[in-house]
Amino acid sequence: MTKFDEATQAIRVDETTYDVCLDPGYSIGGPLNGGYLMAVILRAVVDASAHEHPVTTSAQFLRAARPGPARVRLERIKTGRTAEMTRATLVQDGQAFIETLVTTATLTAGAVPDWTDGPSAAMPPVERCVKLPDPRPESNMTLNAQVDMVFDPPTVGWLDGTPTGRPESRAYFRMAEPQDPDPFVLAFAVDALPPVVFSAGARGWAPTVDLTWHLRALPAPGWLTVLGSGRMIGDGWFDEDVEVWDSAGRLVAQSRQLARVGRG
Amino acid sequence: MTKFDEATQAIRVDETTYDVCLDPGYSIGGPLNGGYLMAVILRAVVDASAHEHPVTTSAQFLRAARPGPARVRLERIKTGRTAEMTRATLVQDGQAFIETLVTTATLTAGAVPDWTDGPSAAMPPVERCVKLPDPRPESNMTLNAQVDMVFDPPTVGWLDGTPTGRPESRAYFRMAEPQDPDPFVLAFAVDALPPVVFSAGARGWAPTVDLTWHLRALPAPGWLTVLGSGRMIGDGWFDEDVEVWDSAGRLVAQSRQLARVGRG
Repeated sequence: MTKFDEATQAIRVDETTYDVCLDPGYSIGGPLNGGYLMAVILRAVVDASAHEHPVTTSAQFLRAARPGPARVRLERIKTGRTAEMTRATLVQDGQAFIETLVTTATLTAGAVPDWTDGPSAAMPPVERCVKLPDPRPESNMTLNAQVDMVFDPPTVGWLDGTPTGRPESRAYFRMAEPQDPDPFVLAFAVDALPPVVFSAGARGWAPTVDLTWHLRALPAPGWLTVLGSGRMIGDGWFDEDVEVWDSAGRLVAQSRQLARVGRG
Repeated sequence: MTKFDEATQAIRVDETTYDVCLDPGYSIGGPLNGGYLMAVILRAVVDASAHEHPVTTSAQFLRAARPGPARVRLERIKTGRTAEMTRATLVQDGQAFIETLVTTATLTAGAVPDWTDGPSAAMPPVERCVKLPDPRPESNMTLNAQVDMVFDPPTVGWLDGTPTGRPESRAYFRMAEPQDPDPFVLAFAVDALPPVVFSAGARGWAPTVDLTWHLRALPAPGWLTVLGSGRMIGDGWFDEDVEVWDSAGRLVAQSRQLARVGRG
């Protein structure tokens, strides 16, 4: 079992309850990363489902969750031959932190798309991409140690005061501890980029309100390419669209989140 | 009160229950259109909320709803100064038909975006766009009579056997009965196009599994521009992305749905 598998483990208590232990290694300055938390929730949902894969997940983030014991509560909404729908809630100290609606189904390994568009943006080769600087220890950004991410340089220009002026963030992604990507790693990957608004000049904590993602295919081993962009920033809100492509050049995940622009 | 306002009316029974009457005028061959049903649900959610606008709606479609009396059941998940989250369920004959998670907030009328991308596709002028042929009476496509939609000609080439070969659908949209667009009209508009897969050569009933949409700004009066596209069709699934722009050139809504490719 890899560290990520362990950190996202969900232990069945009964048909509708799973115990989880939220890992301090996925902190983004105190609160835990939303993608990591979705992966935890999806472990429980998939374990309880007759289907193997979380094809759609809509998550509403109510409160910032902290490391420690928590529970995933499940409510089966619909069973079906093709798809099953579940409401799953992450609960800590008796309070709901994330509400999700999840559809599970079974995708075909190695399915060849009937039609597919190319990636929304071109990436330079891995060796021309750059790492983020190590976070200051007092920042409590423990998440960075779990992943190996290298960025398309202009999209992290905001780090040294040269943002591109538009919402974008692009990186190659893999787990720091060798692990083949799977749907749970993808749940994490769709929310692992720095907020796309940083590249448009915004700063500070950008809380996600709603994140919906779709698993489109089962990922091949190797680097994932994670392409983030946005269409509009205004009235205190922004959207972040993320596409994830696998090493075989297939679109494996799509997400969109609506988040608040940070005031920091 | 317009016909659309009447068809989407939600009558408060108590804090968590609204009575609705699903209108036979929004049928797409028997089942009712999903966008119309979201508008009905959102009437109840907004009426019960301290905030004015449904900024995010994630809907999972469990069963095809039919005209007639139904209820919207609400569960308040979180209240807050900036945003409120509600679970809303459309129930008919004691059975859940649509499950939603909705965030309400209050947007600023006339807010100017801090940053915005342009439309994802260019449209010809209205006068060069085309209407769909009238549906055969026995098809029970009553929806078409409620809307005034004119299409970018190539994106309806599938009607006479010349699909473009890629998932796309683009139209100008307004209600047939004069009515300024509002968030409820937008809920309807994001699901009003023929499925984008028709243009890629697919046919038949394409049931939506999950549709998430974001209200980005309050729409100006006049035509809406509705731009639909998709990134991948495969393994029996497709995504449909819709952007809605208002007559003032602002992005007012964004949606993505995951749906099944029809077998018809």
